[in-house]
Amino acid sequence: MKLFIIKIGGNVLDNPEALKRFLSDFAQIKEPKILIHGGGKIATKIGDQLGIESKYVNGRRITDAQTIDVVTMVYGGLVNKQIVAALQTLNCNAIGLTGADGNLIKATKRPVKDIDYGFVGDVKADGVNTVFLHALLNQNVVPVFAPLTHADGSILNTNADTIASVLAVAMSKIFEVRLIYCFEKRGVLMDVNQADSVITHLPKNLYDDLLTKSVFADGILPKLENAYDAIHSGVKEVLIGEATDLLKNTGAKTEGTLITL
Amino acid sequence: MKLFIIKIGGNVLDNPEALKRFLSDFAQIKEPKILIHGGGKIATKIGDQLGIESKYVNGRRITDAQTIDVVTMVYGGLVNKQIVAALQTLNCNAIGLTGADGNLIKATKRPVKDIDYGFVGDVKADGVNTVFLHALLNQNVVPVFAPLTHADGSILNTNADTIASVLAVAMSKIFEVRLIYCFEKRGVLMDVNQADSVITHLPKNLYDDLLTKSVFADGILPKLENAYDAIHSGVKEVLIGEATDLLKNTGAKTEGTLITL
Repeated sequence: MKLFIIKIGGNVLDNPEALKRFLSDFAQIKEPKILIHGGGKIATKIGDQLGIESKYVNGRRITDAQTIDVVTMVYGGLVNKQIVAALQTLNCNAIGLTGADGNLIKATKRPVKDIDYGFVGDVKADGVNTVFLHALLNQNVVPVFAPLTHADGSILNTNADTIASVLAVAMSKIFEVRLIYCFEKRGVLMDVNQADSVITHLPKNLYDDLLTKSVFADGILPKLENAYDAIHSGVKEVLIGEATDLLKNTGAKTEGTLITL
Repeated sequence: MKLFIIKIGGNVLDNPEALKRFLSDFAQIKEPKILIHGGGKIATKIGDQLGIESKYVNGRRITDAQTIDVVTMVYGGLVNKQIVAALQTLNCNAIGLTGADGNLIKATKRPVKDIDYGFVGDVKADGVNTVFLHALLNQNVVPVFAPLTHADGSILNTNADTIASVLAVAMSKIFEVRLIYCFEKRGVLMDVNQADSVITHLPKNLYDDLLTKSVFADGILPKLENAYDAIHSGVKEVLIGEATDLLKNTGAKTEGTLITL
Protein backbone atom coordinates (compact mmCIF):
# COMPACT_ATOMS: atom_id res chain seq x y z
CA MET A 1 0.00 0.00 0.00
CA LYS A 2 1.16 3.50 -0.85
CA LEU A 3 2.05 6.11 1.78
CA PHE A 4 2.95 9.70 1.00
CA ILE A 5 5.28 11.49 3.39
CA ILE A 6 5.38 15.15 2.50
CA LYS A 7 7.64 17.87 3.85
CA ILE A 8 6.94 21.59 3.49
CA GLY A 9 9.28 24.36 4.48
CA GLY A 10 9.40 28.09 4.93
CA ASN A 11 8.57 29.03 1.35
CA VAL A 12 5.07 27.60 1.88
CA LEU A 13 4.64 28.31 5.61
CA ASP A 14 5.60 31.97 5.38
CA ASN A 15 3.08 32.72 2.64
CA PRO A 16 -0.57 32.44 3.82
CA GLU A 17 -1.94 32.12 0.27
CA ALA A 18 0.61 29.44 -0.67
CA LEU A 19 -0.11 27.55 2.56
CA LYS A 20 -3.86 27.70 2.00
CA ARG A 21 -3.50 26.31 -1.52
CA PHE A 22 -1.08 23.64 -0.37
CA LEU A 23 -3.35 22.44 2.45
CA SER A 24 -6.33 22.35 0.10
CA ASP A 25 -4.32 20.13 -2.30
CA PHE A 26 -2.92 18.03 0.55
CA ALA A 27 -6.43 17.37 1.90
CA GLN A 28 -7.42 15.94 -1.50
CA ILE A 29 -4.83 13.16 -1.49
CA LYS A 30 -6.78 9.94 -1.10
CA GLU A 31 -3.97 7.62 -0.01
CA PRO A 32 -2.53 7.47 3.53
CA LYS A 33 -0.34 10.52 4.11
CA ILE A 34 1.86 12.22 6.67
CA LEU A 35 2.85 15.91 6.69
CA ILE A 36 6.04 17.31 8.20
CA HIS A 37 6.42 21.06 8.49
CA GLY A 38 9.34 23.29 9.36
CA GLY A 39 8.99 26.49 11.29
CA GLY A 40 9.73 29.10 8.69
CA LYS A 41 10.62 32.56 9.83
CA ILE A 42 7.97 32.67 12.56
CA ALA A 43 10.23 31.21 15.27
CA THR A 44 12.95 33.75 14.52
CA LYS A 45 10.39 36.57 14.59
CA ILE A 46 8.85 35.47 17.91
CA GLY A 47 12.32 34.87 19.36
CA ASP A 48 13.34 38.40 18.33
CA GLN A 49 10.19 39.83 19.93
CA LEU A 50 10.98 37.93 23.14
CA GLY A 51 14.53 39.32 23.04
CA ILE A 52 16.11 35.91 22.54
CA GLU A 53 19.16 36.12 20.37
CA SER A 54 19.76 33.45 17.72
CA LYS A 55 23.16 31.94 18.43
CA TYR A 56 25.39 30.39 15.81
CA VAL A 57 28.72 28.59 16.02
CA ASN A 58 30.51 28.04 12.71
CA GLY A 59 27.30 29.00 10.93
CA ARG A 60 25.24 26.36 12.77
CA ARG A 61 22.38 27.32 14.98
CA ILE A 62 22.62 26.53 18.69
CA THR A 63 19.41 25.54 20.46
CA ASP A 64 19.84 26.80 24.02
CA ALA A 65 17.21 26.48 26.76
CA GLN A 66 15.40 29.66 25.74
CA THR A 67 15.46 28.73 22.05
CA ILE A 68 14.01 25.24 22.60
CA ASP A 69 11.11 26.87 24.47
CA VAL A 70 10.51 29.22 21.53
CA VAL A 71 10.55 26.46 18.91
CA THR A 72 8.40 24.23 21.12
CA MET A 73 5.84 27.05 21.25
CA VAL A 74 6.05 28.05 17.62
CA TYR A 75 6.57 24.72 15.83
CA GLY A 76 4.64 22.48 18.24
CA GLY A 77 1.96 25.02 19.13
CA LEU A 78 1.27 27.87 16.73
CA VAL A 79 2.27 26.48 13.31
CA ASN A 80 1.23 22.89 14.01
CA LYS A 81 -2.21 23.65 15.45
CA GLN A 82 -3.06 26.25 12.82
CA ILE A 83 -2.32 23.66 10.12
CA VAL A 84 -4.40 21.03 11.95
CA ALA A 85 -7.38 23.38 12.42
CA ALA A 86 -7.22 24.39 8.74
CA LEU A 87 -7.08 20.75 7.59
CA GLN A 88 -10.08 19.85 9.77
CA THR A 89 -12.31 22.25 7.80
CA LEU A 90 -11.04 20.63 4.60
CA ASN A 91 -12.41 17.27 5.84
CA CYS A 92 -8.93 15.99 6.54
CA ASN A 93 -8.82 14.48 10.03
CA ALA A 94 -5.36 15.77 10.98
CA ILE A 95 -3.62 15.21 14.29
CA GLY A 96 -0.72 17.46 15.31
CA LEU A 97 2.28 15.66 16.72
CA THR A 98 5.82 16.01 17.94
CA GLY A 99 8.16 13.09 18.40
CA ALA A 100 7.33 13.10 22.13
CA ASP A 101 3.64 12.43 21.52
CA GLY A 102 2.93 8.72 21.70
CA ASN A 103 6.72 8.29 21.88
CA LEU A 104 6.59 8.56 18.08
CA ILE A 105 10.18 9.68 17.50
CA LYS A 106 12.72 9.02 20.20
CA ALA A 107 15.99 10.89 19.64
CA THR A 108 19.45 11.09 21.16
CA LYS A 109 20.53 14.48 22.40
CA ARG A 110 23.46 15.40 20.18
CA PRO A 111 26.67 14.61 22.11
CA VAL A 112 28.95 17.54 22.85
CA LYS A 113 32.22 17.27 20.94
CA ASP A 114 33.78 20.52 19.71
CA ILE A 115 30.44 22.30 19.76
CA ASP A 116 27.50 22.03 22.16
CA TYR A 117 24.48 22.32 19.89
CA GLY A 118 22.20 22.35 22.91
CA PHE A 119 18.72 20.84 22.74
CA VAL A 120 19.15 19.14 19.36
CA GLY A 121 17.95 15.61 18.73
CA ASP A 122 19.63 13.13 16.40
CA VAL A 123 17.23 10.54 15.07
CA LYS A 124 17.33 7.13 13.43
CA ALA A 125 14.62 5.00 11.85
CA ASP A 126 14.63 2.57 14.79
CA GLY A 127 13.54 5.44 17.06
CA VAL A 128 10.18 5.65 15.25
CA ASN A 129 7.13 4.07 16.91
CA THR A 130 5.84 2.54 13.67
CA VAL A 131 3.16 0.51 15.47
CA PHE A 132 1.37 3.58 16.80
CA LEU A 133 1.90 5.60 13.61
CA HIS A 134 0.47 2.73 11.58
CA ALA A 135 -2.49 2.50 13.97
CA LEU A 136 -3.22 6.21 13.48
CA LEU A 137 -3.12 5.84 9.70
CA ASN A 138 -5.44 2.81 9.95
CA GLN A 139 -7.96 5.04 11.73
CA ASN A 140 -7.85 7.48 8.78
CA VAL A 141 -6.12 10.04 10.94
CA VAL A 142 -3.52 12.21 9.19
CA PRO A 143 -0.35 12.82 11.24
CA VAL A 144 1.09 16.34 11.00
CA PHE A 145 4.56 16.51 12.52
CA ALA A 146 6.34 19.52 13.94
CA PRO A 147 10.16 19.17 13.72
CA LEU A 148 10.54 18.26 17.40
CA THR A 149 11.65 15.00 19.00
CA HIS A 150 12.41 13.97 22.58
CA ALA A 151 14.89 12.27 24.87
CA ASP A 152 15.14 11.96 28.64
CA GLY A 153 12.20 14.21 29.38
CA SER A 154 13.24 17.06 27.09
CA ILE A 155 11.83 18.29 23.82
CA LEU A 156 14.59 18.47 21.19
CA ASN A 157 14.94 20.41 17.96
CA THR A 158 15.41 18.20 14.89
CA ASN A 159 15.74 19.18 11.24
CA ALA A 160 12.42 18.70 9.43
CA ASP A 161 14.04 17.16 6.32
CA THR A 162 15.71 14.59 8.57
CA ILE A 163 12.45 13.75 10.35
CA ALA A 164 10.72 13.26 7.00
CA SER A 165 13.50 10.94 5.85
CA VAL A 166 13.60 8.93 9.08
CA LEU A 167 9.81 8.50 9.10
CA ALA A 168 9.96 7.40 5.45
CA VAL A 169 12.64 4.79 6.13
CA ALA A 170 10.82 3.46 9.20
CA MET A 171 7.43 3.24 7.47
CA SER A 172 8.96 1.49 4.44
CA LYS A 173 8.70 -1.72 6.44
CA ILE A 174 4.91 -1.44 6.11
CA PHE A 175 4.17 0.78 3.10
CA GLU A 176 5.47 1.64 -0.36
CA VAL A 177 6.63 5.10 0.59
CA ARG A 178 6.97 8.09 -1.70
CA LEU A 179 8.83 10.80 0.21
CA ILE A 180 8.08 14.24 -1.22
CA TYR A 181 10.19 17.29 -0.50
CA CYS A 182 8.41 20.49 -1.51
CA PHE A 183 10.94 23.14 -2.34
CA GLU A 184 11.14 26.39 -4.28
CA LYS A 185 11.91 24.90 -7.73
CA ARG A 186 9.86 22.52 -9.87
CA GLY A 187 12.50 19.84 -9.47
CA VAL A 188 16.19 19.13 -9.88
CA LEU A 189 17.39 21.07 -12.90
CA MET A 190 19.77 20.01 -15.69
CA ASP A 191 20.62 23.69 -16.04
CA VAL A 192 20.23 25.75 -12.88
CA ASN A 193 19.46 28.83 -15.03
CA GLN A 194 16.57 27.14 -16.83
CA ALA A 195 13.52 26.61 -14.66
CA ASP A 196 11.98 24.19 -17.17
CA SER A 197 15.03 21.89 -17.39
CA VAL A 198 13.62 19.54 -14.72
CA ILE A 199 15.09 16.06 -14.65
CA THR A 200 11.79 14.20 -14.30
CA HIS A 201 13.29 10.83 -13.50
CA LEU A 202 16.62 10.37 -11.78
CA PRO A 203 17.52 6.72 -11.26
CA LYS A 204 20.80 5.98 -9.52
CA ASN A 205 22.77 5.24 -12.71
CA LEU A 206 21.77 8.58 -14.28
CA TYR A 207 22.62 10.35 -11.00
CA ASP A 208 26.09 8.76 -10.93
CA ASP A 209 26.61 9.75 -14.55
CA LEU A 210 25.49 13.38 -14.04
CA LEU A 211 27.55 13.58 -10.86
CA THR A 212 30.75 12.92 -12.83
CA LYS A 213 29.69 15.67 -15.25
CA SER A 214 29.22 18.16 -12.34
CA VAL A 215 25.66 18.93 -13.45
CA PHE A 216 24.28 19.49 -9.93
CA ALA A 217 24.52 22.82 -8.14
CA ASP A 218 26.01 22.77 -4.65
CA GLY A 219 22.66 23.52 -3.00
CA ILE A 220 20.94 20.44 -4.35
CA LEU A 221 23.73 17.93 -3.68
CA PRO A 222 23.03 17.31 0.03
CA LYS A 223 19.33 16.84 -0.79
CA LEU A 224 20.21 14.26 -3.44
CA GLU A 225 22.61 12.45 -1.14
CA ASN A 226 19.90 12.28 1.54
CA ALA A 227 17.43 11.06 -1.05
CA TYR A 228 19.66 8.14 -2.08
CA ASP A 229 20.33 7.34 1.57
CA ALA A 230 16.56 6.99 2.01
CA ILE A 231 16.23 4.91 -1.17
CA HIS A 232 19.03 2.60 -0.06
CA SER A 233 17.27 2.19 3.29
CA GLY A 234 14.02 0.97 1.76
CA VAL A 235 12.10 4.06 0.66
CA LYS A 236 10.62 3.32 -2.76
CA GLU A 237 10.66 6.82 -4.25
CA VAL A 238 11.81 10.28 -3.31
CA LEU A 239 10.30 13.21 -5.16
CA ILE A 240 11.70 16.72 -5.14
CA GLY A 241 9.28 19.30 -6.49
CA GLU A 242 7.28 22.46 -6.05
CA ALA A 243 4.46 22.66 -3.51
CA THR A 244 2.06 23.88 -6.21
CA ASP A 245 2.63 20.62 -8.12
CA LEU A 246 1.65 18.46 -5.12
CA LEU A 247 -1.37 16.76 -6.70
CA LYS A 248 0.60 15.93 -9.84
CA ASN A 249 3.53 14.74 -7.75
CA THR A 250 1.33 12.33 -5.79
CA GLY A 251 -0.02 10.87 -9.04
CA ALA A 252 1.45 8.56 -11.65
CA LYS A 253 2.69 11.31 -13.98
CA THR A 254 4.91 13.48 -11.80
CA GLU A 255 6.15 17.00 -12.59
CA GLY A 256 9.10 17.10 -10.21
CA THR A 257 12.19 14.91 -10.01
CA LEU A 258 11.41 11.30 -9.18
CA ILE A 259 14.37 9.61 -7.57
CA THR A 260 14.48 5.82 -7.58
CA LEU A 261 16.95 2.97 -7.43
CA MET B 1 -14.38 0.05 33.35
CA LYS B 2 -12.99 2.98 35.30
CA LEU B 3 -11.61 6.13 33.62
CA PHE B 4 -9.96 8.98 35.49
CA ILE B 5 -10.23 12.45 33.96
CA ILE B 6 -7.96 14.79 35.87
CA LYS B 7 -7.66 18.55 35.60
CA ILE B 8 -4.72 20.55 36.93
CA GLY B 9 -4.48 24.30 37.04
CA GLY B 10 -2.04 27.09 37.66
CA ASN B 11 -1.19 26.17 41.26
CA VAL B 12 0.49 23.00 39.95
CA LEU B 13 1.70 24.26 36.56
CA ASP B 14 3.41 27.37 37.91
CA ASN B 15 5.46 25.42 40.46
CA PRO B 16 8.11 23.15 38.86
CA GLU B 17 8.49 21.00 41.99
CA ALA B 18 4.73 20.57 42.42
CA LEU B 19 4.37 19.72 38.72
CA LYS B 20 7.16 17.16 38.89
CA ARG B 21 5.58 15.44 41.88
CA PHE B 22 2.14 15.54 40.30
CA LEU B 23 3.34 14.00 37.02
CA SER B 24 5.20 11.28 38.89
CA ASP B 25 1.98 10.39 40.76
CA PHE B 26 -0.13 10.70 37.62
CA ALA B 27 2.17 8.30 35.76
CA GLN B 28 1.56 5.66 38.48
CA ILE B 29 -2.19 5.49 37.98
CA LYS B 30 -2.87 2.08 36.45
CA GLU B 31 -6.36 2.66 35.10
CA PRO B 32 -7.13 4.51 31.84
CA LYS B 33 -6.65 8.23 32.39
CA ILE B 34 -6.85 11.61 30.68
CA LEU B 35 -5.12 14.81 31.82
CA ILE B 36 -6.38 18.34 31.14
CA HIS B 37 -4.13 21.27 31.96
CA GLY B 38 -4.70 24.99 32.09
CA GLY B 39 -2.08 27.52 31.11
CA GLY B 40 -1.17 29.07 34.43
CA LYS B 41 0.60 32.38 34.41
CA ILE B 42 2.93 31.47 31.55
CA ALA B 43 0.60 32.73 28.80
CA THR B 44 0.20 36.09 30.54
CA LYS B 45 3.97 36.34 30.99
CA ILE B 46 4.74 35.50 27.34
CA GLY B 47 1.95 37.80 26.19
CA ASP B 48 3.44 40.62 28.26
CA GLN B 49 6.89 39.96 26.81
CA LEU B 50 5.42 40.10 23.30
CA GLY B 51 3.72 43.39 24.18
CA ILE B 52 0.21 41.97 23.88
CA GLU B 53 -2.16 43.54 26.35
CA SER B 54 -4.66 41.34 28.17
CA LYS B 55 -8.09 42.77 27.43
CA TYR B 56 -11.07 42.44 29.74
CA VAL B 57 -14.70 43.47 29.41
CA ASN B 58 -16.77 43.35 32.61
CA GLY B 59 -13.96 41.38 34.21
CA ARG B 60 -13.98 38.70 31.50
CA ARG B 61 -10.98 38.08 29.33
CA ILE B 62 -11.27 38.75 25.61
CA THR B 63 -9.37 36.42 23.28
CA ASP B 64 -8.45 38.58 20.31
CA ALA B 65 -6.41 37.40 17.30
CA GLN B 66 -3.08 38.09 18.98
CA THR B 67 -4.16 36.44 22.22
CA ILE B 68 -5.36 33.23 20.55
CA ASP B 69 -1.92 32.95 18.91
CA VAL B 70 -0.23 33.33 22.31
CA VAL B 71 -2.40 30.71 24.03
CA THR B 72 -2.05 28.36 21.06
CA MET B 73 1.73 28.65 21.45
CA VAL B 74 1.83 28.44 25.22
CA TYR B 75 -0.98 25.98 26.02
CA GLY B 76 -0.76 23.83 22.87
CA GLY B 77 3.01 24.06 22.46
CA LEU B 78 5.14 24.87 25.47
CA VAL B 79 3.09 23.61 28.44
CA ASN B 80 1.56 20.64 26.64
CA LYS B 81 4.76 19.30 25.10
CA GLN B 82 6.82 19.77 28.26
CA ILE B 83 4.26 17.70 30.18
CA VAL B 84 4.24 15.04 27.46
CA ALA B 85 8.05 14.79 27.34
CA ALA B 86 8.20 14.55 31.15
CA LEU B 87 5.54 11.81 31.23
CA GLN B 88 7.40 9.82 28.55
CA THR B 89 10.42 9.42 30.86
CA LEU B 90 8.03 8.24 33.58
CA ASN B 91 6.94 5.36 31.31
CA CYS B 92 3.61 7.01 30.68
CA ASN B 93 2.90 7.03 26.93
CA ALA B 94 1.33 10.47 26.77
CA ILE B 95 0.04 12.20 23.65
CA GLY B 96 -0.48 15.96 23.65
CA LEU B 97 -3.73 17.12 22.12
CA THR B 98 -5.98 20.07 21.47
CA GLY B 99 -9.62 19.74 20.46
CA ALA B 100 -8.56 20.27 16.83
CA ASP B 101 -6.35 17.16 16.79
CA GLY B 102 -8.27 14.18 15.50
CA ASN B 103 -11.34 16.44 15.63
CA LEU B 104 -11.50 15.48 19.30
CA ILE B 105 -13.46 18.48 20.57
CA LYS B 106 -15.48 20.49 18.10
CA ALA B 107 -16.68 23.79 19.53
CA THR B 108 -18.93 26.66 18.52
CA LYS B 109 -17.34 30.08 18.42
CA ARG B 110 -19.16 32.04 21.12
CA PRO B 111 -21.82 34.18 19.44
CA VAL B 112 -21.48 37.92 19.80
CA LYS B 113 -24.27 39.37 21.93
CA ASP B 114 -23.39 42.29 24.18
CA ILE B 115 -19.73 41.32 24.26
CA ASP B 116 -17.48 39.86 21.57
CA TYR B 117 -15.32 37.40 23.49
CA GLY B 118 -13.28 36.77 20.36
CA PHE B 119 -11.74 33.36 19.71
CA VAL B 120 -13.56 31.51 22.49
CA GLY B 121 -15.10 28.09 21.95
CA ASP B 122 -18.26 26.84 23.66
CA VAL B 123 -18.36 23.06 23.91
CA LYS B 124 -20.90 20.32 24.52
CA ALA B 125 -20.49 16.61 25.13
CA ASP B 126 -21.78 15.78 21.64
CA GLY B 127 -18.80 17.66 20.17
CA VAL B 128 -16.39 15.05 21.58
CA ASN B 129 -15.02 12.41 19.22
CA THR B 130 -15.46 9.56 21.72
CA VAL B 131 -14.62 6.90 19.12
CA PHE B 132 -11.10 8.21 18.53
CA LEU B 133 -10.52 9.04 22.19
CA HIS B 134 -11.60 5.53 23.16
CA ALA B 135 -9.30 4.08 20.49
CA LEU B 136 -6.34 6.03 21.92
CA LEU B 137 -7.09 4.75 25.43
CA ASN B 138 -7.37 1.19 24.07
CA GLN B 139 -3.83 1.57 22.73
CA ASN B 140 -2.61 2.47 26.24
CA VAL B 141 -1.94 6.01 25.11
CA VAL B 142 -2.62 8.74 27.68
CA PRO B 143 -4.30 11.85 26.25
CA VAL B 144 -3.04 15.17 27.64
CA PHE B 145 -5.32 18.04 26.63
CA ALA B 146 -4.47 21.70 26.33
CA PRO B 147 -7.54 23.92 26.86
CA LEU B 148 -8.03 24.61 23.16
CA THR B 149 -10.83 23.55 20.82
CA HIS B 150 -11.66 24.37 17.22
CA ALA B 151 -14.39 25.50 14.82
CA ASP B 152 -14.36 26.54 11.17
CA GLY B 153 -10.61 26.32 10.78
CA SER B 154 -9.72 28.34 13.88
CA ILE B 155 -8.24 27.30 17.18
CA LEU B 156 -10.44 28.52 20.04
CA ASN B 157 -9.77 29.17 23.72
CA THR B 158 -11.94 27.09 26.07
CA ASN B 159 -11.94 26.95 29.86
CA ALA B 160 -10.01 23.88 31.07
CA ASP B 161 -12.59 23.02 33.77
CA THR B 162 -15.27 22.99 31.10
CA ILE B 163 -13.22 20.77 28.80
CA ALA B 164 -12.66 18.32 31.66
CA SER B 165 -16.38 18.23 32.41
CA VAL B 166 -17.43 17.84 28.77
CA LEU B 167 -14.92 15.02 28.21
CA ALA B 168 -16.17 13.32 31.38
CA VAL B 169 -19.81 13.49 30.29
CA ALA B 170 -19.01 12.26 26.79
CA MET B 171 -16.84 9.36 27.99
CA SER B 172 -19.49 8.29 30.54
CA LYS B 173 -21.22 6.48 27.70
CA ILE B 174 -18.27 4.06 27.67
CA PHE B 175 -16.58 4.24 31.10
CA GLU B 176 -17.35 4.70 34.78
CA VAL B 177 -15.80 8.15 34.99
CA ARG B 178 -14.31 9.77 38.05
CA LEU B 179 -13.65 13.43 37.20
CA ILE B 180 -10.98 14.89 39.47
CA TYR B 181 -10.42 18.61 39.88
CA CYS B 182 -7.09 19.35 41.53
CA PHE B 183 -7.28 22.64 43.37
CA GLU B 184 -5.49 24.45 46.16
CA LYS B 185 -7.42 22.96 49.10
CA ARG B 186 -7.75 19.35 50.24
CA GLY B 187 -11.43 19.35 49.40
CA VAL B 188 -14.68 21.21 49.99
CA LEU B 189 -14.60 22.49 53.58
CA MET B 190 -17.39 22.55 56.20
CA ASP B 191 -15.62 25.58 57.66
CA VAL B 192 -13.59 27.64 55.19
CA ASN B 193 -11.22 28.64 58.02
CA GLN B 194 -10.40 25.04 58.95
CA ALA B 195 -8.24 23.25 56.38
CA ASP B 196 -9.02 19.85 57.91
CA SER B 197 -12.80 20.22 57.81
CA VAL B 198 -13.05 18.42 54.46
CA ILE B 199 -16.45 17.01 53.57
CA THR B 200 -15.22 13.63 52.33
CA HIS B 201 -18.49 12.53 50.77
CA LEU B 202 -21.05 14.92 49.38
CA PRO B 203 -24.09 13.16 47.94
CA LYS B 204 -26.81 15.34 46.46
CA ASN B 205 -29.12 15.23 49.49
CA LEU B 206 -26.34 16.42 51.82
CA TYR B 207 -25.41 19.12 49.30
CA ASP B 208 -29.01 20.37 49.17
CA ASP B 209 -29.14 20.36 52.95
CA LEU B 210 -25.84 22.26 53.38
CA LEU B 211 -26.86 24.69 50.65
CA THR B 212 -29.90 25.80 52.68
CA LYS B 213 -27.56 26.31 55.67
CA SER B 214 -25.22 28.52 53.54
CA VAL B 215 -22.20 26.36 54.41
CA PHE B 216 -20.43 26.83 51.06
CA ALA B 217 -18.20 29.79 50.33
CA ASP B 218 -18.93 31.73 47.14
CA GLY B 219 -15.76 30.50 45.43
CA ILE B 220 -16.70 26.84 45.65
CA LEU B 221 -20.35 27.15 44.61
CA PRO B 222 -19.82 27.33 40.81
CA LYS B 223 -17.51 24.29 41.06
CA LEU B 224 -20.17 22.34 42.94
CA GLU B 225 -22.89 23.35 40.50
CA ASN B 226 -20.69 22.20 37.61
CA ALA B 227 -19.98 18.96 39.46
CA TYR B 228 -23.69 18.15 39.86
CA ASP B 229 -24.31 19.08 36.22
CA ALA B 230 -21.70 16.46 35.29
CA ILE B 231 -23.21 13.90 37.68
CA HIS B 232 -26.69 14.47 36.28
CA SER B 233 -25.27 13.98 32.78
CA GLY B 234 -23.89 10.54 33.54
CA VAL B 235 -20.51 11.09 35.24
CA LYS B 236 -20.30 8.61 38.12
CA GLU B 237 -18.17 10.62 40.54
CA VAL B 238 -16.59 14.06 40.75
CA LEU B 239 -13.75 14.55 43.18
CA ILE B 240 -12.43 17.91 44.31
CA GLY B 241 -9.08 17.68 46.06
CA GLU B 242 -5.45 18.66 46.31
CA ALA B 243 -2.95 17.65 43.61
CA THR B 244 -0.67 16.13 46.27
CA ASP B 245 -3.47 13.70 47.23
CA LEU B 246 -3.86 12.42 43.66
CA LEU B 247 -2.94 8.79 44.35
CA LYS B 248 -5.30 8.63 47.31
CA ASN B 249 -8.02 10.35 45.32
CA THR B 250 -7.79 7.78 42.52
CA GLY B 251 -8.12 4.96 45.03
CA ALA B 252 -11.05 3.59 47.03
CA LYS B 253 -10.37 5.65 50.17
CA THR B 254 -10.33 9.25 48.97
CA GLU B 255 -8.99 12.28 50.85
CA GLY B 256 -10.83 15.00 48.96
CA THR B 257 -14.55 15.60 48.49
CA LEU B 258 -16.28 12.83 46.58
CA ILE B 259 -19.43 14.09 44.90
CA THR B 260 -22.04 11.55 43.84
CA LEU B 261 -25.74 11.27 43.17
